[in-house]
Amino acid sequence: MKGYNEGKVTLAHGEGGLATQRLISGLILKYFDHPALVRLDDAAVLSTEGGGEGCSLAVTTDSFVVKPLFFPGGDIGKLAVCGTVNDLAVCGARPRYLTVGLILEEGFSLEDLERILSSVARTAAEAGVSIVAGDTKVVEKGSADQVFINTTGVGFIPPGTALGYERIRPGDAVVINGGVGEHGLAVLSQREGLSFATPIESDCAPLNGLIQGVLNRFGERIRFMRDVTRGGVATVVQEVAAASGVDFVLEEERLPTSAAVVGACEMLGLDPLYLANEGKVLMVVDPSVAGELVAALRGERYGKEGAVIGYTAQTRGKRQGLGGEAFLKTALGATRRLDLLDGELLPRIC
Amino acid sequence: MKGYNEGKVTLAHGEGGLATQRLISGLILKYFDHPALVRLDDAAVLSTEGGGEGCSLAVTTDSFVVKPLFFPGGDIGKLAVCGTVNDLAVCGARPRYLTVGLILEEGFSLEDLERILSSVARTAAEAGVSIVAGDTKVVEKGSADQVFINTTGVGFIPPGTALGYERIRPGDAVVINGGVGEHGLAVLSQREGLSFATPIESDCAPLNGLIQGVLNRFGERIRFMRDVTRGGVATVVQEVAAASGVDFVLEEERLPTSAAVVGACEMLGLDPLYLANEGKVLMVVDPSVAGELVAALRGERYGKEGAVIGYTAQTRGKRQGLGGEAFLKTALGATRRLDLLDGELLPRIC
Repeated sequence: MKGYNEGKVTLAHGEGGLATQRLISGLILKYFDHPALVRLDDAAVLSTEGGGEGCSLAVTTDSFVVKPLFFPGGDIGKLAVCGTVNDLAVCGARPRYLTVGLILEEGFSLEDLERILSSVARTAAEAGVSIVAGDTKVVEKGSADQVFINTTGVGFIPPGTALGYERIRPGDAVVINGGVGEHGLAVLSQREGLSFATPIESDCAPLNGLIQGVLNRFGERIRFMRDVTRGGVATVVQEVAAASGVDFVLEEERLPTSAAVVGACEMLGLDPLYLANEGKVLMVVDPSVAGELVAALRGERYGKEGAVIGYTAQTRGKRQGLGGEAFLKTALGATRRLDLLDGELLPRIC
Repeated sequence: MKGYNEGKVTLAHGEGGLATQRLISGLILKYFDHPALVRLDDAAVLSTEGGGEGCSLAVTTDSFVVKPLFFPGGDIGKLAVCGTVNDLAVCGARPRYLTVGLILEEGFSLEDLERILSSVARTAAEAGVSIVAGDTKVVEKGSADQVFINTTGVGFIPPGTALGYERIRPGDAVVINGGVGEHGLAVLSQREGLSFATPIESDCAPLNGLIQGVLNRFGERIRFMRDVTRGGVATVVQEVAAASGVDFVLEEERLPTSAAVVGACEMLGLDPLYLANEGKVLMVVDPSVAGELVAALRGERYGKEGAVIGYTAQTRGKRQGLGGEAFLKTALGATRRLDLLDGELLPRIC
């Protein structure tokens, strides 16, 4: 007997968890096999043509359907720039060009459109990227929800940049530039009209300046980076563990989670580890530089709560060759395996 | 008194006509001023970083919201590849990489999604481009119409390529690679359940092979190219006339319009000059090669009805310095000015 949702797209397909993975690997990747795509990195690393040595290109795309359009700490325009800039930056690229594709619903307010575009422009200026191409489509009232934005980014990777999950080894340190969960909670609170004792703002920010500084200073000691978005830290570490063949152990007590986030999550029954961020990068680094890196992060505008949050380890025997797993060492000393989110949590968070 | 639509997005904003132009120049370009963007060419021509000579990059983006998703001669997947590949090709670029951003409506059929993706893959293979990055978002039922696709394309422009409206001179020949109006009518007939005596199929096709062949053979004798999409031939010639400062004169009798298109347009009260195509390129060329070019086009799969359809002329005195205008010499010998479409014609044609 076929289930209710058999053969249909569900909201869970868009959550970044198990259903999304199944859709991508079971259906989408049947048709597309470019080596840069099947790695499922944040951006595709590509060669240019006729260019000299070191002229490699990074390309990434992201559509934004966040609801509501405006939320504490940001809006869809700021998000659309940060999301794409950060995907390029974590691949070691210097983001340079963005395209913006707008899908507008008939009747959408031109004033709101203008607010969003000015936010795109302001964030692009902060990140140092240029909007070089655009497209605008309009659909009838009821055929879209106000506005959807696609941004696609192009950046250049300086010669000698070496980042990749292949470079992760057991014993590396896992570092993050700040607290988790803010973006997801900020959007949720705005959408549902919740108010928390301490207001929670989205952490939405362009991280390319911070990341470039880290790469310039620590070079190859930085093995791998990924920005923490849909599915939260828990999803990122599982994906990276699976790809790298190394286990990840996060230590709950070391996670920089604000009291406001902890309180809101307790109230709502949410796990901050699975909540989206839009201004956080997870770095896997040579343990010898972890302390110095955290100190450097804490001197940056977007890194004040930087911390080591865990480490990598040889994967357990029975799964060897099947990819690594991710674990959480809880504040009480127990260790539990982190699983991919199965089903929907918070649709339309980005 | 404010009109009904004051301050709101209307379907006309998405038609490619006057309202679209006003939205772009009046609102969007207030915030974005990169020289490659403000030219409003089909693709942005950009420099690479650290590359050798001639390593220039072309980038373009397009969102596809066509309704219905499947129509005679194509579907949204084929369209999404052709539209972006053609935008790169008319700038002289060799299309190389595509990104695909999907926005899916909850409940959309996975079988239809798969048909669309296989069409994307097949068309990309024909065009010789690789899908290198993707993104999938899902919105609640009723918040989108089945599926919207954004494709962004990256291509490389060989050194020495010289195309641009600045190169157009009075006395140039205007050439097209075939009949006009098919795509618009094919989508309309499918949407409205119309059937014509002779079925009309979309001309949707990747033109990069044809265009590359033309550029290889005729080089600088090709001054400018643009693909004919939203707004049809009439809109393209007006935009190019305005940008180049040269008048365009189309000769109605020379336009390769099929009997089926003429018949359907008469029945529906539509003007084929304003109907969308998705496999047509307008070329402005040195008149000395026009005949040879048309003969070459007619030997190509996507150029069998190629023809000279008009010429360029010194712009009339009173508008000098204000950009050129476009005219149609009718079959009866009269000459009328072509105007930009004001209002909506056929929403969601691409």
